[in-house]
Amino acid sequence: MTQLEAAKQGQLTEEMRIVAQDEGIEPEELIKWVANGRVVIPANKNHHNRYPYGIGEPLRVKINANIGTSPDNCSIDNELAKLKVVDELNSESVMDLSVAGELNKIRETIIEHARMMVGTVPIYQIIVEHSGDINRIDIGTILEIIETHGRQGVDFITVHCGVTRGALPLLKKRTMGIVSRGGSFIVSWMRIHKKENPLYEHYDDILDIARKYDITLSLGDGLRPGAIVDASDEAQFHELRVLGELTRRARQAGVQVMVEGPGHVPLNQIKHNIQLQQEVCDGAPFYLLGPLTTDIAPGYDHIVGAIGSTLAAYYGAAFLCYITPAEHLRLPTVEDVREGVIASKIAAHSADLAKGNEQAWQWDKWFSEMRYKFDWEGMYNNAIDKRKPRKYRKFSTHVDEEECSMCGEFCALKLQKIGNK
Amino acid sequence: MTQLEAAKQGQLTEEMRIVAQDEGIEPEELIKWVANGRVVIPANKNHHNRYPYGIGEPLRVKINANIGTSPDNCSIDNELAKLKVVDELNSESVMDLSVAGELNKIRETIIEHARMMVGTVPIYQIIVEHSGDINRIDIGTILEIIETHGRQGVDFITVHCGVTRGALPLLKKRTMGIVSRGGSFIVSWMRIHKKENPLYEHYDDILDIARKYDITLSLGDGLRPGAIVDASDEAQFHELRVLGELTRRARQAGVQVMVEGPGHVPLNQIKHNIQLQQEVCDGAPFYLLGPLTTDIAPGYDHIVGAIGSTLAAYYGAAFLCYITPAEHLRLPTVEDVREGVIASKIAAHSADLAKGNEQAWQWDKWFSEMRYKFDWEGMYNNAIDKRKPRKYRKFSTHVDEEECSMCGEFCALKLQKIGNK
Repeated sequence: MTQLEAAKQGQLTEEMRIVAQDEGIEPEELIKWVANGRVVIPANKNHHNRYPYGIGEPLRVKINANIGTSPDNCSIDNELAKLKVVDELNSESVMDLSVAGELNKIRETIIEHARMMVGTVPIYQIIVEHSGDINRIDIGTILEIIETHGRQGVDFITVHCGVTRGALPLLKKRTMGIVSRGGSFIVSWMRIHKKENPLYEHYDDILDIARKYDITLSLGDGLRPGAIVDASDEAQFHELRVLGELTRRARQAGVQVMVEGPGHVPLNQIKHNIQLQQEVCDGAPFYLLGPLTTDIAPGYDHIVGAIGSTLAAYYGAAFLCYITPAEHLRLPTVEDVREGVIASKIAAHSADLAKGNEQAWQWDKWFSEMRYKFDWEGMYNNAIDKRKPRKYRKFSTHVDEEECSMCGEFCALKLQKIGNK
Repeated sequence: MTQLEAAKQGQLTEEMRIVAQDEGIEPEELIKWVANGRVVIPANKNHHNRYPYGIGEPLRVKINANIGTSPDNCSIDNELAKLKVVDELNSESVMDLSVAGELNKIRETIIEHARMMVGTVPIYQIIVEHSGDINRIDIGTILEIIETHGRQGVDFITVHCGVTRGALPLLKKRTMGIVSRGGSFIVSWMRIHKKENPLYEHYDDILDIARKYDITLSLGDGLRPGAIVDASDEAQFHELRVLGELTRRARQAGVQVMVEGPGHVPLNQIKHNIQLQQEVCDGAPFYLLGPLTTDIAPGYDHIVGAIGSTLAAYYGAAFLCYITPAEHLRLPTVEDVREGVIASKIAAHSADLAKGNEQAWQWDKWFSEMRYKFDWEGMYNNAIDKRKPRKYRKFSTHVDEEECSMCGEFCALKLQKIGNK
């Protein structure tokens, strides 16, 4: 049974028990949310030693970090170093997006080492192993690879089932066209084969594999806008409506499902984007790619993404895919991964505070009490990043423990005590 | 005559002409906004070679960068190096917050070199030069220093006139007390002297000096919350109401005025904070300190501030004080200044886009067209930061100009063209 099937029958699984405890909520409430699909618990039966997390609007906001090899940098050790950073910074999820080396072996190694949930995009493997031969790729090849991922223990997979032929004419008005690798591949396949998207046509077969291992489907947004001027266009919302239909079919089949979106979106359109997704997809957890609130800041897209995703999560998005400073430029290094995870954790936590999450408020209250007392060690050990604040103070010439070098002796906290004495 | 007095009489000053052209708006419209105080143009008559900028909700969002010496690092060359970075990154304003060295000389040098507007906090000079002797500080000392700043050409000054005795009992419930240096000093002064805030009592004298040089007053928020749990409390809003009264008095006296706020504020309270300020202060330009949407990310407060200030500017705040990664930890280095300015520019521009500013949209559209064509040089030269994207690509092992190493040969933009051929 999948988590969804168990919840529909009112059964509390071990994963649900842990999630409820971790979130500080009643198990009965969680069962209800899993049953109606507002919460998913990506937990493949074959992924052992994984700590389960719930993803959904009623819970704390979760984040994902992408890692993976590329032809330019294909070393499993490098990817494990990234995984270590991701783990240290408490990311609840990691996606293996490897496109170079022995993909099955790399994935197996990552799953073995990952204590958080692991996601993949099976279509990448197809692109890598068959891209020279797009004419001969058929649904059989695709299902076989999905089956492999499921058997290995992948907790959730992105599948671009919603890119359909009906959307193709709508793309012509775009400045950036398609910026999703999976989406782009599917569109090329459809144009060459002059057929409907095989992932859409054979969706029931994908559901069968997903149910077998309890893989959560993450319905990819192959047509997400890749430029501010393309945001909220007809192509994007055409796909979203298809994703709504596919969400309902997954749930009926007992398969857990979330929905991805929405790319580059100006701040004023974020509320509408989230509310529309929640409405069209019956409250399915929204997995954010972006939203990036401007195009003009390469090198700083982790900041741009933090701005957009905080607001989106406040309005109801549940799961943030991190964005690193390397976005649009190069494959992220270990240091880029660190920056990306931290920015996403800040966004997730800021949204939790804004939504009134009690655990989040306690953390901030406690932290500020330490700040008031100049408890530097306490702050270092309980900050989102435990490394940089310590380094920053260390490289300051200031040593007085009751001040920082920002205001030095003219510290507001000290000044105000003068009159109180 | 001040800009405000000229506007009230329907006169178009040279500064207004430049601002209208720069913003792409009709001069008549700008005169109207300056006359009713929704826009200020901080432009001291004695600051020569300064390019004038307008600040107000109807215009593009502007940013300020703080620089200045401290006892730990007192070098004018270092401050000029910061000024250079601030200028290169197109910050419209710089504040000299020096608290070490020959303050008058440092200020003079910065004003001489600054092509953007320059602000100061005169009370800092009083704290530095008289802090050991708080008993003997009186309004005469304070006015003399304000006069010096005005004569030297300071375009705007922060004055903590709104911290009044009525607010003192309201501070007792706070976790962090007072985090503004100026506010903290004034409170100490009031407690020791058992008198009302001298900046409040002698506000008319301050207005006289401001009018003489056309210094724009920036009414400081001495009681801004310094912790999420202190946000939107009675002390903060008590001061805001006083600032509303002082805003009206400044305008009546022909003095340009803006209002500072609001410190640490969770995302869900930002809209209310901005709307309340706009209402209570009759649309006076809101100069943002923060808002910081969480307390727990020391080392990354530039990101936290970008999240809060983008939303605040979207709701109507006009002017963003940058926050660097060094906030709460140490005095910013030149590199911290760079990071802070960039994060603020991203926030300001994202808000401009969200408000539908035509110039902002053109920039993003043009940028994405370059991205689609893989015009890397074009992107480097027109990004918010022109340095990091180039460096990132350079240190990537990838060389193909028609790809980035993020997706490499599996580039979505290239893939989608397969089917189009």
